[in-house]
Amino acid sequence: MEIGIIGLGKMGLNLALNLKDDQYQVIGLDISEQARLAAKKEGITTVDSISALTQVFTGKRIFWLMLPAGVPTENVLMELYQFVESGDIIIEGGNTNYKDSIRRAALFKEKAVAFLDCGTSGGISGARNEACLMIGGEEAAFREIEYVFKDIATENGYVYAGPSGSGHFLKMVHNGIEYGMMQAIGEGFQLIEQSDYGFDLAAVAKVWNHGSVIRSWLMEIAESQFSNSPRLAEYRGIVAASGEAKWTVETALEMNVAVPTIAMSLFMRNISQEEDNFSAKVVAALRNGFGGHEIVVKD
Amino acid sequence: MEIGIIGLGKMGLNLALNLKDDQYQVIGLDISEQARLAAKKEGITTVDSISALTQVFTGKRIFWLMLPAGVPTENVLMELYQFVESGDIIIEGGNTNYKDSIRRAALFKEKAVAFLDCGTSGGISGARNEACLMIGGEEAAFREIEYVFKDIATENGYVYAGPSGSGHFLKMVHNGIEYGMMQAIGEGFQLIEQSDYGFDLAAVAKVWNHGSVIRSWLMEIAESQFSNSPRLAEYRGIVAASGEAKWTVETALEMNVAVPTIAMSLFMRNISQEEDNFSAKVVAALRNGFGGHEIVVKD
Repeated sequence: MEIGIIGLGKMGLNLALNLKDDQYQVIGLDISEQARLAAKKEGITTVDSISALTQVFTGKRIFWLMLPAGVPTENVLMELYQFVESGDIIIEGGNTNYKDSIRRAALFKEKAVAFLDCGTSGGISGARNEACLMIGGEEAAFREIEYVFKDIATENGYVYAGPSGSGHFLKMVHNGIEYGMMQAIGEGFQLIEQSDYGFDLAAVAKVWNHGSVIRSWLMEIAESQFSNSPRLAEYRGIVAASGEAKWTVETALEMNVAVPTIAMSLFMRNISQEEDNFSAKVVAALRNGFGGHEIVVKD
Repeated sequence: MEIGIIGLGKMGLNLALNLKDDQYQVIGLDISEQARLAAKKEGITTVDSISALTQVFTGKRIFWLMLPAGVPTENVLMELYQFVESGDIIIEGGNTNYKDSIRRAALFKEKAVAFLDCGTSGGISGARNEACLMIGGEEAAFREIEYVFKDIATENGYVYAGPSGSGHFLKMVHNGIEYGMMQAIGEGFQLIEQSDYGFDLAAVAKVWNHGSVIRSWLMEIAESQFSNSPRLAEYRGIVAASGEAKWTVETALEMNVAVPTIAMSLFMRNISQEEDNFSAKVVAALRNGFGGHEIVVKD
């Protein structure tokens, strides 16, 4: 069985290797020569254009996109649209807004091409060894290639989520929950780090991974990171927010559902990215205005 | 080795059985006859008073308290104080405020009695099979009976946390993190439950437990609960808050550390317990006042 992987970044390359381990004929496409060379080194056949990729198949054509969501994914799909034919299957594995997936599935349906939106979790190690996949789209297409998901996911690590968009909807909420769990873990360790007890943070994370209620993969990662860097002294507390928690909060607003801890986790990441905080400036200025309280002035 | 377990509730009885499995001579004390009978049925020797308990030992005396924090624990400790002698060791395994443990350790030190504060996680199954223990207090006393903790905890499931109070401090923060993780999970599943996709919540939790970033014991519990009750239709959304997250937030306030998601998780539990919400009444009244917006009136 041939599978075309579009996007040979950290996730795509590891997914390609995972598929290759399971005896799939993987053809990798990336516009970066460096990414193609890295894939070739690992024994992956590569091509450098979508037209070349579409011509290389000898049978059933499955295109699996692992690209940054938004413009890169949109551009590739619009180009791919020119080449696909009835019976082809597209798996879109990026961190895409589920509304985009609904729109795209409808578009490809016009050409009788199945478009599966595939929420992908488990990070790089998951892509390489045992991914967690949430798949939305036409059920017939899902069933037709279910064995592929079964081969590369952990046991029970894939689910048919429902109609188009449902896979990315689940991945979106998954990431919203992830933000909240991570922020709570972060807040807890700040208390532990700043307490007078002089705790060994790695030892704390380790004991919590052995029998506690909060044992989790995230706590295992914390244990590993604190083992490498006991107090993260060389890092700065700046956290990127790649979109999914924002969409979770936007979706919650549309649905009139309160998600205060997920929203707050996102806001804390936004704050972490600021050089200075304007709302704090305003508050300081107001305090100065009514009480003459000192304002810290720039050097 | 003899160990007296004071408090034969859900946690204490299971801890007693865990110790008994490891060939300890367990003597259980509970003021409730029903609790003593339940323990006897399981083969635990019981007594009905602290004075009886203190007299039953033939050698080293270890008293392990598993009682509700606050008044019950305080009362038992004050009575126990009359009977203890130099060399005795007290393990206080409840969900106690770490400041109480610092105070009590100092008190018992006057009688040369070691007082270990032991944060206990893992729930009932943990107490029965493999607990997660965070132990604070004099290190010499901890080392003297370390083998006991080793026998009943999971591998690496106990840690010497540091001076008095440190075990309960860690347990406090653990529970703060737990509140945040649980609230984020709750918010995420509300979005999933109320979406139009008609998701199978148990299937979602299950796939997330197989390779996803948010795989965790809490998600396993979610999977199990949704398997038993697909939409929790028979439950009401009322959640108790037993104190530890409140202390986490209080401690954060003392330390001037921001813990917004942990605080919000606690507030959401507080709100869940209200029949009606006064702040919402005020907001409704203000809207009515400036814009004539309708107020919902009691039936």
